[in-house]
Amino acid sequence: MRWTKTHLFTLKEAPSDAEIVSHQLLVRGGFIKKVAPGIYTYGNLALRAIRKFEAIVREELDRRGCTEILMPMVQPRELWEETGRWSKMGDGLLKFQNRNGHWHCLGATHEEAVTDYVRSDVKSYRDLPKTIYQIQIKYRDEIRPRFGLMRGREFIMKDAYSFDLDAESALKTYQLMYEAYQAIFDRLGLIYRIVQADAGPIGGSQTHEFQLLAEAGEDALLVSDSSDFAANVEICPAIDAEPQRAGGATPVGATPVGAFSVGGEGATGLSPDENLQPLSPFATPGLKTIADLAKATGLPERELVKTLFFSANEGLDPKDKSLQPIAVLLRGSDEVNLVKLKNLLQLANPPRMLTEEEVRQTAGAGPGSCGPVGLKIPIYMDTGVQGLKNYIVGANQEGFHLRHVNHERDYKPTQIVDLRVAREGDRDPQGPGRLRACRGIEVGHVFYLGTTYSQKMNACYLDREGKARPLEMGCYGIGVSRTVQAAIEQSHDQDGIIWPVALAPFEVHLCALDMGDPGVKSLTEKLEQELEARGVGVLVDDRDERPGVKFKDADLLGFPVRLNIGRKGLEAGVIEVIVRRGRQVRKVKPDEVIPVTEKLLRDLKQSETRSETRRGGGRETL
Amino acid sequence: MRWTKTHLFTLKEAPSDAEIVSHQLLVRGGFIKKVAPGIYTYGNLALRAIRKFEAIVREELDRRGCTEILMPMVQPRELWEETGRWSKMGDGLLKFQNRNGHWHCLGATHEEAVTDYVRSDVKSYRDLPKTIYQIQIKYRDEIRPRFGLMRGREFIMKDAYSFDLDAESALKTYQLMYEAYQAIFDRLGLIYRIVQADAGPIGGSQTHEFQLLAEAGEDALLVSDSSDFAANVEICPAIDAEPQRAGGATPVGATPVGAFSVGGEGATGLSPDENLQPLSPFATPGLKTIADLAKATGLPERELVKTLFFSANEGLDPKDKSLQPIAVLLRGSDEVNLVKLKNLLQLANPPRMLTEEEVRQTAGAGPGSCGPVGLKIPIYMDTGVQGLKNYIVGANQEGFHLRHVNHERDYKPTQIVDLRVAREGDRDPQGPGRLRACRGIEVGHVFYLGTTYSQKMNACYLDREGKARPLEMGCYGIGVSRTVQAAIEQSHDQDGIIWPVALAPFEVHLCALDMGDPGVKSLTEKLEQELEARGVGVLVDDRDERPGVKFKDADLLGFPVRLNIGRKGLEAGVIEVIVRRGRQVRKVKPDEVIPVTEKLLRDLKQSETRSETRRGGGRETL
Repeated sequence: MRWTKTHLFTLKEAPSDAEIVSHQLLVRGGFIKKVAPGIYTYGNLALRAIRKFEAIVREELDRRGCTEILMPMVQPRELWEETGRWSKMGDGLLKFQNRNGHWHCLGATHEEAVTDYVRSDVKSYRDLPKTIYQIQIKYRDEIRPRFGLMRGREFIMKDAYSFDLDAESALKTYQLMYEAYQAIFDRLGLIYRIVQADAGPIGGSQTHEFQLLAEAGEDALLVSDSSDFAANVEICPAIDAEPQRAGGATPVGATPVGAFSVGGEGATGLSPDENLQPLSPFATPGLKTIADLAKATGLPERELVKTLFFSANEGLDPKDKSLQPIAVLLRGSDEVNLVKLKNLLQLANPPRMLTEEEVRQTAGAGPGSCGPVGLKIPIYMDTGVQGLKNYIVGANQEGFHLRHVNHERDYKPTQIVDLRVAREGDRDPQGPGRLRACRGIEVGHVFYLGTTYSQKMNACYLDREGKARPLEMGCYGIGVSRTVQAAIEQSHDQDGIIWPVALAPFEVHLCALDMGDPGVKSLTEKLEQELEARGVGVLVDDRDERPGVKFKDADLLGFPVRLNIGRKGLEAGVIEVIVRRGRQVRKVKPDEVIPVTEKLLRDLKQSETRSETRRGGGRETL
Repeated sequence: MRWTKTHLFTLKEAPSDAEIVSHQLLVRGGFIKKVAPGIYTYGNLALRAIRKFEAIVREELDRRGCTEILMPMVQPRELWEETGRWSKMGDGLLKFQNRNGHWHCLGATHEEAVTDYVRSDVKSYRDLPKTIYQIQIKYRDEIRPRFGLMRGREFIMKDAYSFDLDAESALKTYQLMYEAYQAIFDRLGLIYRIVQADAGPIGGSQTHEFQLLAEAGEDALLVSDSSDFAANVEICPAIDAEPQRAGGATPVGATPVGAFSVGGEGATGLSPDENLQPLSPFATPGLKTIADLAKATGLPERELVKTLFFSANEGLDPKDKSLQPIAVLLRGSDEVNLVKLKNLLQLANPPRMLTEEEVRQTAGAGPGSCGPVGLKIPIYMDTGVQGLKNYIVGANQEGFHLRHVNHERDYKPTQIVDLRVAREGDRDPQGPGRLRACRGIEVGHVFYLGTTYSQKMNACYLDREGKARPLEMGCYGIGVSRTVQAAIEQSHDQDGIIWPVALAPFEVHLCALDMGDPGVKSLTEKLEQELEARGVGVLVDDRDERPGVKFKDADLLGFPVRLNIGRKGLEAGVIEVIVRRGRQVRKVKPDEVIPVTEKLLRDLKQSETRSETRRGGGRETL
């Protein structure tokens, strides 16, 4: 394709709202242009990358017997009422009335639509299993769209849905799709990890995320340094690496007398023989934070206990104004994991913290002075607190704390459960190793759903005995547009994008430096035609621009191989062949350019798709 | 592909809301399934036909230097306010607020979006011309969706937009796109006509529709029997075929004394020497309709004059309650053409007729007794009335008419203009022939827009003199999903679809009649693999069903060539090869099946794409 014949304009500066480098490069390279927050037009180059990725996805799914269909983006309310998600999905599901006053939404996901599609056809066990997929535009009304295609409102997604006879067969299908996803992401020439994850509002009991590793990724991951274990921090079990050094609660101002727990697997706490001391309040005027208290008491934050308050209301129904407060106890050094809390409370979305006023109503004192003793609401204690004895908590009286507090004796936790955020250095839950932290961009997600949707939507089949049974389902998503941007986030340098061959909009960037020169012109035409005929996509920069401008743009757009054809080079009998990754320059005779280019592309592709590289070093298995 | 591995279920009965045969066949064949009125899921087979069509469209557009992009379906209100179409588009444009309270709409068309896309890039005359297109989901909130994909709410469209330096260059691009459309529709194996058309709310001054001919088509067309002329009836000039026999207005009950006009080209009327007779009222109690009046007077309806009243208000702004009535005069035998009237009044939509009450307020009498004499509002006279003299109109007094009415003397028409519906037998406006009527399905539409959008949206470029000039635009649509259904409407028989090769989801339907038989099984596998390897799509009906069931489904799905492989046939050394169109059966030896099938497909394709057939007999040119 000729640059001057297409619509392609590069920019020197990225817009101020492009916070991460991949977003900046997409805009500067003319790949995307913003229409509204989270809503973009894809230029020709972005579309080419997307289509290449879609072709890979189709190939791997079709090969495994999946059937492609296309469901509508506009869906009637009635479908979503069947599963209760019309309200449960919250404001991310964009709803509107059409001209006839009927409520519809824009498809944010298609479990309801696909189950409806399948239920009227599938009658018997003989019709199963089936896996159906589509590649389609989705809309989610993100409250704060950002990072370009990474968290957009309108985006392109591949979503697949499987229907099986029973759980055993459904888990086989899950494994098959897991392998399909490995095959897809192995082909991209990018580094990714497969991690355990939260099922979110989709529901379901088994789920893995496919995460492209990148510093700017929105997801914090923890991966084992010695086993296959990898998890999104949202659900990663938190197990202290070292037995806890707990001092018990000593009087304010006194030197803490430490004691070391004996420390079993992940256990924390004091030595079992420490005596429980009598509960007593003490004045802590002006001490509002854990840091204040640690400073005043001389105790480390991890030996103090903090009490947080949340609303267990679903929060989605604006009419439900009643408050259902709960308390969470954590060590002062720990952070509450809202996803763990959400799942514990069986909510669709993470619960909100109570306001200062609501805390006061609930506990009798403000957030700086409250604690579990005397509370009449459910108290969820993080396992990190379990081993502490004689500790300090707020007294539920303004400006006072209690010391020598002990659970069971002074208050009864409703449940002791892992509610804190795991962190780098924590113990690998599946082996003797430690967790290390990295960041990822979620590009794929597989879920085993069970019969959550089929039961609600009465999607059944008759088994061999003629008995109606609900379909066993799974669902499997790939963020198509997001993956294309994530590839850039992982693969770029200071001058621009470095496309892996598998996703490159064009494989070859041909800089024709003197198109006025007949030799340059005819060789350019010849190479363009011959490469295209061999299935190699070529962008010819035939603009009337200085070489420096063309080279800068070539680096920005980042196609794998660049050819510089100029009058001077041709006089010397050479063309420059430059691989974008590393920018090594080869001087090649004109009649060797095609075999050299093809070999370079082959070699690049091969090195990019070595799966031991792709899967982030450690082979991930189910 | 194996039937049992895909998701494909046929139905014996079409749903009751499927009024036309193509809709019935699409549903019965499992091609589409309704999700909501006008909203469908496309099954795998429909998607294959759509993808094949899309590939043809891409090929012809890319070949002509068009650039593909992808614009969003959700668009911000601000863009549409720039052109005034936020309100002008009416209720067909689906509008909603997102969670932040910002108004958006679902893209029904993309002039605003594409002009916005281009205006920030295109700076200079050197950047032009450019033609940009996308293939995308559109949503139009049809008030009464019907006929399946033919008039759906959510549908797939190819829309292209051109940007040129000046009108001359824009009309060249128009011609290029016109030719691209011919090339596209020539390849489909279907009969179509290119007709002059109304520009509708898109705007623009030159426009042609590409119409696939079919009895069930929504568009009435008039095509010349002797010239290239063809037009949508909406805009077809009406020229009487025969000079009008006009009797003038004779007294009620008296025998009319006829007089013949001399009749120039398209002229109607009385002989020029007929005297104007004195105006006089007469009682016509109970005579409310033209038919009543014709019966009572003995005059033919075409010699009577009727007066219709319309509101010239835009009707889109619900706040504008003031009435702007106008009157239209037509011969009693003619029908008003609302599109001509809309264009005359420069409205976005056809005007509405006044209610009986509004007529009474405007004219002083009800619809049966009113006429032009004494009216204080604009009076638009159809050319058919122009030649009449001494005619009868309502007296604007209940139960009375006037006789011997003559325009200019008794009232002044504001304008004399073609406002009636043309009809079969009318004169060809471009030649000596006559018009004949047919019906079509609009599948493509090309518009020359001029600077309507670029001026409003300030989309300019700097010309050679450095002067800012607005971009000259055109827009070009193809209804992708509609074309696929229209193909079926044109090409089917009582048993099912007859796909042209170009659109067939699969080229070959392989009925494996005894899959238990090892010979049948191995030959089926071999043929499937070898045909697929040669690029021929094969659906293998490997279901455990009787031959009759398989044959019925094969006829219903309508792929071009069917192979019947059965145990008995193989014992006799033959396979049945059946062409769907005509259903001729050939008995072919197994090792000749592939060359025979390939030749049949080649021959079919060739016969289907002869352009003299495709263009409905008469070669259409601009």
